[in-house]
Amino acid sequence: MKNRSIILAKRPIGNPKSDDFVLQEGELPDIQDNEILVKNFAISLDAGFRNWMNEDAGDEILPAMSLGEPVMGLSLCEVIGTKNSEYAVGDKLMARFAWQEYSIGKPGDFISKLPSDLAFPYSYYLGVLGDTGMSAYFALTEIAPPKEGQTVLISAAGGAVGSIAGQIAKIYGARAVGITSSPEKCDFLVNELGYDAAVNRKAPEDQAEAIKAVCPDGVDIFLDNVGGETLQAAITNMNHRGRIVMIGAVTHYTSEGPPTAPNNLFELSSKEITAQGLMTHFRHDQYDDVRQHLENWLSEGKLKSFEHKLNGIENVGVAFCQMFDGKNFGKTVVDL
Amino acid sequence: MKNRSIILAKRPIGNPKSDDFVLQEGELPDIQDNEILVKNFAISLDAGFRNWMNEDAGDEILPAMSLGEPVMGLSLCEVIGTKNSEYAVGDKLMARFAWQEYSIGKPGDFISKLPSDLAFPYSYYLGVLGDTGMSAYFALTEIAPPKEGQTVLISAAGGAVGSIAGQIAKIYGARAVGITSSPEKCDFLVNELGYDAAVNRKAPEDQAEAIKAVCPDGVDIFLDNVGGETLQAAITNMNHRGRIVMIGAVTHYTSEGPPTAPNNLFELSSKEITAQGLMTHFRHDQYDDVRQHLENWLSEGKLKSFEHKLNGIENVGVAFCQMFDGKNFGKTVVDL
Repeated sequence: MKNRSIILAKRPIGNPKSDDFVLQEGELPDIQDNEILVKNFAISLDAGFRNWMNEDAGDEILPAMSLGEPVMGLSLCEVIGTKNSEYAVGDKLMARFAWQEYSIGKPGDFISKLPSDLAFPYSYYLGVLGDTGMSAYFALTEIAPPKEGQTVLISAAGGAVGSIAGQIAKIYGARAVGITSSPEKCDFLVNELGYDAAVNRKAPEDQAEAIKAVCPDGVDIFLDNVGGETLQAAITNMNHRGRIVMIGAVTHYTSEGPPTAPNNLFELSSKEITAQGLMTHFRHDQYDDVRQHLENWLSEGKLKSFEHKLNGIENVGVAFCQMFDGKNFGKTVVDL
Repeated sequence: MKNRSIILAKRPIGNPKSDDFVLQEGELPDIQDNEILVKNFAISLDAGFRNWMNEDAGDEILPAMSLGEPVMGLSLCEVIGTKNSEYAVGDKLMARFAWQEYSIGKPGDFISKLPSDLAFPYSYYLGVLGDTGMSAYFALTEIAPPKEGQTVLISAAGGAVGSIAGQIAKIYGARAVGITSSPEKCDFLVNELGYDAAVNRKAPEDQAEAIKAVCPDGVDIFLDNVGGETLQAAITNMNHRGRIVMIGAVTHYTSEGPPTAPNNLFELSSKEITAQGLMTHFRHDQYDDVRQHLENWLSEGKLKSFEHKLNGIENVGVAFCQMFDGKNFGKTVVDL
């Protein structure tokens, strides 16, 4: 059986480029005992995966990606063959399968079953109801829940995590301020996502001053997806006993040479700030519960999904690169 | 009435030098309604005060020190005159008075009354029973209590906070590893303070490798008093969901130009580390309770005080400088 995959042809240097990825056709082997064969029908693109493309990345759960192998990702798929009694043909799953048309899965591939009748469009299960929506939820519900009227600052605010986090901050009655990378995305934040204010981190102005101008009472909670200078500028604006949730650090993954580091970390001491790292995949056991909460907010009209969609396996690498060029408005998904 | 004070003559650049401080004789005015007159009999030296000597330091509780004024400090004193009914002549106090022989106090000067019969030598109330002992207590009891067998790494491990924190880690059944600045202090850590192992951060070896060699199971809790490269080396060795308590950052206070920043902060995300800042003076309302706990440990012989003592108002600046040269073994106190 033929299969088309996107291979990690080169480890990206800085922002990923389209020729870091190559489309390759191969043969699928037969499945073995305990395995399932799935057809991927949608692939989730997440900036965080850029980190796993670096040779020295990875942890006990997710190792660094291998050169010459299909790029590890997150997909929605349907079971079309099974030698595992837990899964039946026709089951719809979300799993950490690679960028390919068909995958062979086995227990341990972070497989979670989706209901047979999805309450929402399937792509929601990769974004607002997937890892990125859940990152936003964990950050603002479990790690740093805002009080009414507090200021929540979010970087990469128009991306997959940020587009949901801004809305959750508003659900909790907080003031949501977003940091993004272009004037167009600033408009998107305020006019579409409901942010109270937006800062363009690529504008020539000093980032700390720009944040201060729209956060006159300081920042109580900062959700960081960027790191580096943006983290430094946010720390400068944090209030006493403010909380930082460190979700990602796009400037770190893409840094050529040692990444820029915030040189004002002493303010974590002097302002008694708490900074906590979050990697959603370590909370896999809570996914079903959290998805229910997010579904409720969607049903009640409190939460909306924003998606940037492309089509075809040949466009998966392209879609990934677009995210780093700031071309995505919301969650990036490729339909196969 | 004559009074001798140590004046902040220059704002220190880098490590403080003895000529940053000048002994000055002046006249004490009469006390006004609500005020008290005290004779300071012991002065506490704390590396953290170096930060308040920078022009841009300070917070809502403790402002930056003023040039040409007596250096702000922490003293033990006895009331010798009073126009405040809360304080009687003969009362012994701990308060944030300046480096001087006599001070005039009023409510708001962080005054806490000591019992008339001290259970321990008075200098203990500046160290193990004072701010620094309490910092160690808050860090390891409230913020990041270790489980039995966990590895607790402590920087500036032979200083006022570290000499107590290492012992508290051992009380909790943890493995205590100290980072300090000379081979002599490494010996002091292991042979006197009871640390299980010690690392000299000024040795030519790579600091991260040196820590790894004595923390083969990684670091679960890191108490940082140094910042910069030491913080970076510790982060590299932290375990998943490890905790960092940021108590001080001596490399930050003394940095000429922007301080060295750890460039591996993404590991806070990827390892889901929590870093929390601690400034003991924000927990003033808990001092009496915490002092009781520390007194119990002292009485039970579980905790010992280690002090570096000098004499005379003229030596207060000298004692302060010695701390930054790593000459103090334990808590630095000057008797007047």
